[in-house]
Amino acid sequence: MADKYKHDYFNVTFPHQYVAVVEINRPEKMNAFMEVMWLNLEKIFNTLSYDPEVRAVVFTAAGDKAFSAGLDVQAAASGELSGNSKLDGARTATRLRRHIYEFQRCITAIEKCEKPVICLLHGICYGLALDLCLAADIRLAASTTRFSIKEVDIGLAADIGTLTRLPHAGVPMSWAKEVALTAREFGAEEALRVGLVSGTAGSKEELRQKGVGMAQKIAGKSPVAVVGTKELINYSRGRPVEDGLNYTAAWNAAMVQTQDVTDAITAGLKKKQVTFSKL
Amino acid sequence: MADKYKHDYFNVTFPHQYVAVVEINRPEKMNAFMEVMWLNLEKIFNTLSYDPEVRAVVFTAAGDKAFSAGLDVQAAASGELSGNSKLDGARTATRLRRHIYEFQRCITAIEKCEKPVICLLHGICYGLALDLCLAADIRLAASTTRFSIKEVDIGLAADIGTLTRLPHAGVPMSWAKEVALTAREFGAEEALRVGLVSGTAGSKEELRQKGVGMAQKIAGKSPVAVVGTKELINYSRGRPVEDGLNYTAAWNAAMVQTQDVTDAITAGLKKKQVTFSKL
Amino acid sequence: MADKYKHDYFNVTFPHQYVAVVEINRPEKMNAFMEVMWLNLEKIFNTLSYDPEVRAVVFTAAGDKAFSAGLDVQAAASGELSGNSKLDGARTATRLRRHIYEFQRCITAIEKCEKPVICLLHGICYGLALDLCLAADIRLAASTTRFSIKEVDIGLAADIGTLTRLPHAGVPMSWAKEVALTAREFGAEEALRVGLVSGTAGSKEELRQKGVGMAQKIAGKSPVAVVGTKELINYSRGRPVEDGLNYTAAWNAAMVQTQDVTDAITAGLKKKQVTFSKL
Amino acid sequence: MADKYKHDYFNVTFPHQYVAVVEINRPEKMNAFMEVMWLNLEKIFNTLSYDPEVRAVVFTAAGDKAFSAGLDVQAAASGELSGNSKLDGARTATRLRRHIYEFQRCITAIEKCEKPVICLLHGICYGLALDLCLAADIRLAASTTRFSIKEVDIGLAADIGTLTRLPHAGVPMSWAKEVALTAREFGAEEALRVGLVSGTAGSKEELRQKGVGMAQKIAGKSPVAVVGTKELINYSRGRPVEDGLNYTAAWNAAMVQTQDVTDAITAGLKKKQVTFSKL
Amino acid sequence: MADKYKHDYFNVTFPHQYVAVVEINRPEKMNAFMEVMWLNLEKIFNTLSYDPEVRAVVFTAAGDKAFSAGLDVQAAASGELSGNSKLDGARTATRLRRHIYEFQRCITAIEKCEKPVICLLHGICYGLALDLCLAADIRLAASTTRFSIKEVDIGLAADIGTLTRLPHAGVPMSWAKEVALTAREFGAEEALRVGLVSGTAGSKEELRQKGVGMAQKIAGKSPVAVVGTKELINYSRGRPVEDGLNYTAAWNAAMVQTQDVTDAITAGLKKKQVTFSKL
Amino acid sequence: MADKYKHDYFNVTFPHQYVAVVEINRPEKMNAFMEVMWLNLEKIFNTLSYDPEVRAVVFTAAGDKAFSAGLDVQAAASGELSGNSKLDGARTATRLRRHIYEFQRCITAIEKCEKPVICLLHGICYGLALDLCLAADIRLAASTTRFSIKEVDIGLAADIGTLTRLPHAGVPMSWAKEVALTAREFGAEEALRVGLVSGTAGSKEELRQKGVGMAQKIAGKSPVAVVGTKELINYSRGRPVEDGLNYTAAWNAAMVQTQDVTDAITAGLKKKQVTFSKL
Repeated sequence: MADKYKHDYFNVTFPHQYVAVVEINRPEKMNAFMEVMWLNLEKIFNTLSYDPEVRAVVFTAAGDKAFSAGLDVQAAASGELSGNSKLDGARTATRLRRHIYEFQRCITAIEKCEKPVICLLHGICYGLALDLCLAADIRLAASTTRFSIKEVDIGLAADIGTLTRLPHAGVPMSWAKEVALTAREFGAEEALRVGLVSGTAGSKEELRQKGVGMAQKIAGKSPVAVVGTKELINYSRGRPVEDGLNYTAAWNAAMVQTQDVTDAITAGLKKKQVTFSKL
Repeated sequence: MADKYKHDYFNVTFPHQYVAVVEINRPEKMNAFMEVMWLNLEKIFNTLSYDPEVRAVVFTAAGDKAFSAGLDVQAAASGELSGNSKLDGARTATRLRRHIYEFQRCITAIEKCEKPVICLLHGICYGLALDLCLAADIRLAASTTRFSIKEVDIGLAADIGTLTRLPHAGVPMSWAKEVALTAREFGAEEALRVGLVSGTAGSKEELRQKGVGMAQKIAGKSPVAVVGTKELINYSRGRPVEDGLNYTAAWNAAMVQTQDVTDAITAGLKKKQVTFSKL
Repeated sequence: MADKYKHDYFNVTFPHQYVAVVEINRPEKMNAFMEVMWLNLEKIFNTLSYDPEVRAVVFTAAGDKAFSAGLDVQAAASGELSGNSKLDGARTATRLRRHIYEFQRCITAIEKCEKPVICLLHGICYGLALDLCLAADIRLAASTTRFSIKEVDIGLAADIGTLTRLPHAGVPMSWAKEVALTAREFGAEEALRVGLVSGTAGSKEELRQKGVGMAQKIAGKSPVAVVGTKELINYSRGRPVEDGLNYTAAWNAAMVQTQDVTDAITAGLKKKQVTFSKL
Repeated sequence: MADKYKHDYFNVTFPHQYVAVVEINRPEKMNAFMEVMWLNLEKIFNTLSYDPEVRAVVFTAAGDKAFSAGLDVQAAASGELSGNSKLDGARTATRLRRHIYEFQRCITAIEKCEKPVICLLHGICYGLALDLCLAADIRLAASTTRFSIKEVDIGLAADIGTLTRLPHAGVPMSWAKEVALTAREFGAEEALRVGLVSGTAGSKEELRQKGVGMAQKIAGKSPVAVVGTKELINYSRGRPVEDGLNYTAAWNAAMVQTQDVTDAITAGLKKKQVTFSKL
Repeated sequence: MADKYKHDYFNVTFPHQYVAVVEINRPEKMNAFMEVMWLNLEKIFNTLSYDPEVRAVVFTAAGDKAFSAGLDVQAAASGELSGNSKLDGARTATRLRRHIYEFQRCITAIEKCEKPVICLLHGICYGLALDLCLAADIRLAASTTRFSIKEVDIGLAADIGTLTRLPHAGVPMSWAKEVALTAREFGAEEALRVGLVSGTAGSKEELRQKGVGMAQKIAGKSPVAVVGTKELINYSRGRPVEDGLNYTAAWNAAMVQTQDVTDAITAGLKKKQVTFSKL
Repeated sequence: MADKYKHDYFNVTFPHQYVAVVEINRPEKMNAFMEVMWLNLEKIFNTLSYDPEVRAVVFTAAGDKAFSAGLDVQAAASGELSGNSKLDGARTATRLRRHIYEFQRCITAIEKCEKPVICLLHGICYGLALDLCLAADIRLAASTTRFSIKEVDIGLAADIGTLTRLPHAGVPMSWAKEVALTAREFGAEEALRVGLVSGTAGSKEELRQKGVGMAQKIAGKSPVAVVGTKELINYSRGRPVEDGLNYTAAWNAAMVQTQDVTDAITAGLKKKQVTFSKL
């Protein structure tokens, strides 16, 4: 593993050309997140974003029990959520707002990563786990997965992205509000039925094969086309259609000027495999 | 029932602590709506919104035949839809526009109510019934439910919210346009399949148990968290993700400063039940 | 066929009163599109939009093999995608941007057509076929349909509408990104399950009967109501709910002033068939 | 004065046909605002909005010393700004937010009033006085006027509209931020130079003549045209040009259908005075 | 004059390389506009937009009396504004809306023209003259100019762009509403003071020299830079700053790849004149 | 100077309590910017943003000749603007886009800095100097100042903020486009007249006194109020009024809970000086 990817609580590996696998690595605590972890997560995804050796990312977690149990509540309880502020309400709010901005920015690094991120879910997926996977592009789940938008159970409205991204995930809003307001658990099958995930697998191992296979497939495509596809879909969410079309035209005016098109068409006509240069 | 909730054509009851049930009560006319009814509806939901005794609302209707047959067309035909205006087109339009604003504002009171609203549908759900339930947060339907976006059948594009909220309901748009353009009936099962409702029940009574149970569950959570969850999901619809995240940070900078977090975490660690103070 | 509808590569017929059928007619090339075709498509839909004899449009394609294989890549390869520009990057971008604007405008003519468009898909539906059907209002598919968002395979991010309209189609975004990034094929059943299409039929002929029947049903409704329903749903996508409600009030202040309402209500009370005048 | 306009702390008079004058009437306290006053203000402007006898509104204040000294700080200090909340930060925030919404809604009634509002400023114009006049359409000032965006001096960011509407007032933003951040006083001449007001007068009496004269002029125009002009300018602020044009077309499709156009053109050709019917 | 620029009621000339002058040519009727004129105007500006021989456009009008008296009211009174519709209100609205869309689109062609448009105003500038000049980029006025937003005088809210573009013109809104609501005349000096025009000249001839000189100056710059500058300023109006920055990055990623930069820098270092290739 | 403010090419000093002065320090090159400089600039403003010892920032530059001559073109010409890319157009665009994002982010740090920034301009202010000062809150200029939006002269549309922020600066757009398209120079007096700057001074020294004095005045106010005032004005630009009001309510629900209000009111009543605690 390259030094630039060495960060506590994460493993970054490259099982195939152009495919990176990011693994949360704190299984003994159900991969619950402390502040250092989301700061490291941001560094990793920012690096992946521009790394010419990477064209697709798989996001997974160590251990069998949990993708992530969410926020490490004990750590948070002695920190930002301690409630022991001696400051007045405005000054406390200022600290909290700065903290939320930073926390959001770290998780949003997954979304802003130029390369597609396939999130593989298994076991416990509580609270922050939802924020994480909703910032990814594609979600797949093992049959063991137990989801819960857990935040209401600790007195919070989920503020690191879940509530903002759910209305853009293409899932039924009646269902989304039910699970966000009740914090009830749901499994992989239900997640597939409502469209929160787009595929399932029996075991964690099968899931990994499926996810890595999908990443390999994407990594074989033109990186110019792949990066643009992610960007243009994300841009168009929550904006009028005319805005999306206009931005698309500005974007592609540059991006269509790629050798990849000629290479792909030529290879297609000759029924040959095509190799794209780095981005 | 408190005086503040006594309004013609509605019953408001409180079967459990923090749970209100609003019942449309004009069963002899299939709960069809006249102007006084939507004006009363607005008063009720505005009051529920700030009532510290209320944390979740169930919205239902009296009688077995219909949640609501929609607009009372006979009443409307002698009123705003009479077509007997002696005014010129601009002056008629001004009256109509003022009327539509008021009508929209009344139905939107369900959406603006701070507390989550669970809408229980049964029997006939035509026209305005859709506007009503789409302004609610969660929709559940009895097996008897017969939905129809009926407005095209009386020469109207549905203007009290159905056409605006359908694109934000997380249902397939091809399906939504088909049912809005043809006014064809569909039942609970189809509504569940496309995600318009997130749960069904066999009978009206079972539906009520399910809905009230869900309301009780929500009412047991931190009211600060519940109110924020509704607000932040609603805000994020139809806006870019960055806007939703930013608003969320501003909102939660205040709302995280709640005793509920400490209480919930402490109770969680002690595996005790937690009681939240009023909001 | 009226002269105004005679354009190369398209047949426009009127099997029933107020119902137009637009057929792509280049079956020997799998209905692949060259520039003249999208220019003609725009002319046809612009004419349909204001034609008082038309109240619903069916959009289909000749031959059994394909609705459309997408862009005629060979034609494009010697044109805009040739890569043989002697101009600098900015000048090439300017040409490409102008080209994309024009191409987008032609396909968007389907969306801007005042009358609802029901798109009937069968056989190969690759690349541009998706842009076309996503600009339509209702999508139905024969069991033979094989969809693929093919653009990444030729080095492109789909820029004629697919990536902009998918996030507004009410389909799960995890699924949408998967198929857009991998270009994998999917069939009618999967399209129905995720909501990309809202109905299927066994054969092309059955599909046509279903689509034309639906168009007839819509054509029997008030044209004022139908045109408004399409416009108001489209407007509300990607905008906050308040914006949609406000625009709806401005729109309907004029459109409720129609004889159709009185006629429809009167006919309804008398249980008679109603005939609406032209729009 | 009609009963519907009788509200404490305000005089509403009708010096000329179709011209209303609203006068803040608490001169002994420099027209400082308590809660009952903004609640009454809202009632008055809501009534003016739909009153067919009103086509233009002049907004002024009693006494020579002040248009308004702003918020009655002593009253506020024992109310919402008391700081004596026993509630936690989130519950206090909830009360404050509800309070701000209500306060904003009352002041926004000036902006939402269908008829143009000409605000006549004189003497002290501090804090809330800015929120009030920025919600009006036209601002004129006597030479005695002393403006100050005073809120920072009591520890507040102006939240009832000043900070939101300044960026839409067409004044230089460098200047706007300077006066908002320093709370420094400025006079009528400076306000005219930067465009905050569009006219000045030497004395309060001259100002009234100027303002009422302008109101009379507007009241002589077609009320359909006047109401539309206010609405369409307000709509277009803070939105892309395309949005403004589209909304304008929807609005005017109804509003051009007015007898006023024919009457005005006919009168124009005959060089006669035209009288428009009520709106 | 090339054939492509020959259209009734307009002269298009090329006094200097890369500089086009468009002259409205109906001086005997004070350059008042009939429908054929705005249709021709659109054709001219659409052609200028992509014409590589054009880098800056001057927009002026024949005769000494008027830039334009606005809409030819007599022509309109027997057409769209006749008020003699036998159709119901909705059908009349549909015709009017289609008419307004078309009319707006023609005038917006000035704004959408890729090349900067300098509008030279003189004499009478009433009604539509404002819509025209507000769609241009730079406005200069002769001392004879008499402006009036005249629409309220014929019972209309200005719907072809004036009310939408005024809030984006950087003029004081209090002033803008005053002149839009009263239709009062104002001259070149006032227009300069409020910023509606950015320069004045004594006579029409001096104005032309000033305007053409400015056009020549712009035509001497890199056309890539000029086109981008117009587009990016226009895009950013009415949108949040973040949106403008993001679009700018997408745009310039292509446009910075121009030989013009190298040529300009090299010429700058050598203190030589630079010649840019066509766009 | 604290270590955290030590960065090449900048001096950061604290002449008065809570007042920071940031000085660009490359006078021998007219304070032209190389990449390391904007990276350092970002670090400095990010640190100032949260520094409790800072309540207002003055932004100035060393030497008499120039605030900044803009981009160091020689450095850029051998870097990003070299034009010597061996990559295809899409890959070159990707590098440029990443570069522009980074460059924009650095300059935007001035805008995102929580504390108000007063920019003091003198001498040459070319190109990037405009991007810099437009990201600041208040602009003041010495009589020596010579502004030019210079980018078109080197073949570029200004992409680091000038073109995006000009339409939000409250300056006349006709003037703004003229100076952006012609790159012509203008001085302090003209800048004041159009509102680009809100104050002028004769010499650089007088300007500094004026700017620092203003900063001191702001630093004496409640920091809670000051930070909120900057944020709420910036938020409201380019957004509808309703959005600004709603965000303001969410923001102030927290921020009104400050001891500063009580302290300020109490001090005001007692006519005493108030001291606010740190933020």
